[in-house]
Amino acid sequence: MSDRTPPNRDTPGREAEEVARIGVLGRGTVGAAFAELIERDGEAIAAAAGRGVEIAGVLSRSSGDLDEIVERSEILVELIGGTDPARDYVLRALRAGRHVVTANKQLIAQHGEELFEAAREAGVQLRFEAAIAGAVPVVRVIAESLAATEISRVFGIVNGTTNFILSEMAGTGASYAGALARAQELGYAEADPTDDVGGADAAAKMAILARLAFHSPVELADVRYEGITEVQPHDLAYAKELGLSLKLLGVAELVDGGLSVRVFPAFLHRGHPLAPVEGPFNAVMVEAPAITEITMSGPGAGGPETATAVLGDVVSILAGDAPVHRIRRRLEVITDVSSAFYLHLEVADRPGVLARIADVLGRNEISVQSVVQRGLGDDARLVMVIHECPESRFGAALAEIAELDFLRGSPRAIRVIEEEFV
Amino acid sequence: MSDRTPPNRDTPGREAEEVARIGVLGRGTVGAAFAELIERDGEAIAAAAGRGVEIAGVLSRSSGDLDEIVERSEILVELIGGTDPARDYVLRALRAGRHVVTANKQLIAQHGEELFEAAREAGVQLRFEAAIAGAVPVVRVIAESLAATEISRVFGIVNGTTNFILSEMAGTGASYAGALARAQELGYAEADPTDDVGGADAAAKMAILARLAFHSPVELADVRYEGITEVQPHDLAYAKELGLSLKLLGVAELVDGGLSVRVFPAFLHRGHPLAPVEGPFNAVMVEAPAITEITMSGPGAGGPETATAVLGDVVSILAGDAPVHRIRRRLEVITDVSSAFYLHLEVADRPGVLARIADVLGRNEISVQSVVQRGLGDDARLVMVIHECPESRFGAALAEIAELDFLRGSPRAIRVIEEEFV
Repeated sequence: MSDRTPPNRDTPGREAEEVARIGVLGRGTVGAAFAELIERDGEAIAAAAGRGVEIAGVLSRSSGDLDEIVERSEILVELIGGTDPARDYVLRALRAGRHVVTANKQLIAQHGEELFEAAREAGVQLRFEAAIAGAVPVVRVIAESLAATEISRVFGIVNGTTNFILSEMAGTGASYAGALARAQELGYAEADPTDDVGGADAAAKMAILARLAFHSPVELADVRYEGITEVQPHDLAYAKELGLSLKLLGVAELVDGGLSVRVFPAFLHRGHPLAPVEGPFNAVMVEAPAITEITMSGPGAGGPETATAVLGDVVSILAGDAPVHRIRRRLEVITDVSSAFYLHLEVADRPGVLARIADVLGRNEISVQSVVQRGLGDDARLVMVIHECPESRFGAALAEIAELDFLRGSPRAIRVIEEEFV
Repeated sequence: MSDRTPPNRDTPGREAEEVARIGVLGRGTVGAAFAELIERDGEAIAAAAGRGVEIAGVLSRSSGDLDEIVERSEILVELIGGTDPARDYVLRALRAGRHVVTANKQLIAQHGEELFEAAREAGVQLRFEAAIAGAVPVVRVIAESLAATEISRVFGIVNGTTNFILSEMAGTGASYAGALARAQELGYAEADPTDDVGGADAAAKMAILARLAFHSPVELADVRYEGITEVQPHDLAYAKELGLSLKLLGVAELVDGGLSVRVFPAFLHRGHPLAPVEGPFNAVMVEAPAITEITMSGPGAGGPETATAVLGDVVSILAGDAPVHRIRRRLEVITDVSSAFYLHLEVADRPGVLARIADVLGRNEISVQSVVQRGLGDDARLVMVIHECPESRFGAALAEIAELDFLRGSPRAIRVIEEEFV
């Protein structure tokens, strides 16, 4: 351990007063989204971090001076991408006693050990949640929640571009080229998609996850990977008949006391937890004997998502230790919200029943989405689905209905979540 | 801020040498599982925490002395449950400058503010990941990854007992009483299931999640809750016809600038991310404008799962700051693993084709799970699913097949994950 200490530690008195200065390396989509979060959510950030945050400088290809920005900053956020000059810049920042947060998967996959060592030497933090799955917190969960848990396997969908393309091919019957063009149109694929569709992007992410989960060195060259460029619409058509769906999977697992890290397209059975993950989403499963499995999913990339992951790391560095759960505001508790309802009524099967119920609902301004009558005579039942309405209004109608003379039992109401995902 | 500092801070020199002593309050299933983890995974814990860990004492109803255990411990793990005497014990430990890790949802839901304040005063940590969803890391993700992110809604399935009962009713047509009896038989429900089936358990968890996500005080009395005791097999049968599945949902959300926290049974459409969550599993979704949504799921309770969550908190306290990613071992990289395969061959449609292919596979000791022939003449295709075998052996067979004279294109092989979940 070196005798250098990071700037926010050797001056313990100033933390509470001073704004934390963040240097940003790179001026792209994520950088812009990060600056916007700092601007817009400044108050929440200050509450979470214990100090306000401001951007001390931005380094781009054409402007800014690295040494000056490092000098002025407490934390460097590296969003340049690639390894050159990112590796050099990050090393210089770490050695100058600055914490670093990066979204750069190639940097960590190829130079992780060197950077981790430099951070340990300098007694500073190097965080990289955004390098794997955007705001899906796989790094934190594996490296912190499960730091002492024996993990047996980490696998999942860690590239949103390929997952979008495969979803598109399966859903529309499009060719690989057609689905890729669509992905590019929507901004899910870059103009040169090679790294994504060839599997190299996922391979770098799996190298990092394997390193974190198994605490053993993993070189990028240790990861065998295949992409999705050879997948044919025919394959997806057959797969559908067989109840299978195709995903580009990354798998890191212990095998016979060794470590296997691979990326490959694979068919999953319909019941598999990753089968329903569609579009540009990412999902990672962690298996460990003590916990069976944990699954985490969400949008894998995109400016605001990646910037949110970067911000989470920045705030963790500033907050230190555990969150102290300070109250930041006092919200009023709302009790009357709106819901849709399933309504089950056991009724005597006689004329006019439905009309009387419809009348009660109508007077309470409640609209019916569907109604089904089942059974006959003494076993007649009305099952209705009611559109979203204030629960107080529904409650009033229900109380009236409960008094109707043809009801043979208490009405039963269960909420229905109207949102349909996907 | 008091001038008391926790025992692991005022003596910075000793951390690297001394074993961390953990006092355990309560001697139940989770306590036993925690002791087993400490015993079995000692090496991994020491690597993750930076120090070895040992149990300094266990307090049960009939043995042990609280003051003595507090005196001897650096971290107290509270597994008594309930609020009396847990509240008093935890307060005493915090005020004595000890970190506390608890799995006690009622304690945090009812006395969180008082305890958070005591922890801040003493400059120690109070962690409670295990109080919500076992090893599913919802507390850490909301309170750390998303500490500065404006969350709009947190919702999910936070009670495994009721989710098991509802899954059982939907799957088998069992009555509520029958499904409950089955849950009790399997250990998923307690002898007195009132708190689970009535919704109070989920209400306490949602109160905590709402407090963490929205940084506003939430009293247990602010949570309106219903349970599942009134659910009838009929409801589930109708729901199935409508493509709906029933879950006990907890929802905490911002509504009109206020806060609504509720627990209620609700029907979900088939495409809803929570619809496939079956049995005793938990799943929580966090929605925020910047990240769309993150979903986390896994087994919600059980001794080893809860103990794993407790251990994650203990290790975080001991490790401090961010993980430093030390290499703990050097695993060999395995390249030949086993896989099942989908194999797609475009062939000339003539006699003997299938026999020649089967011969190649047989000589390579590869067994075929299913084979389908499609098309005729120049458009004939063979689609086979191959049972799991070493990839090297499959590769050798594939190379032989590629040389067969009746092949009209390169063979296409895609891995199949054989595991069927649920």
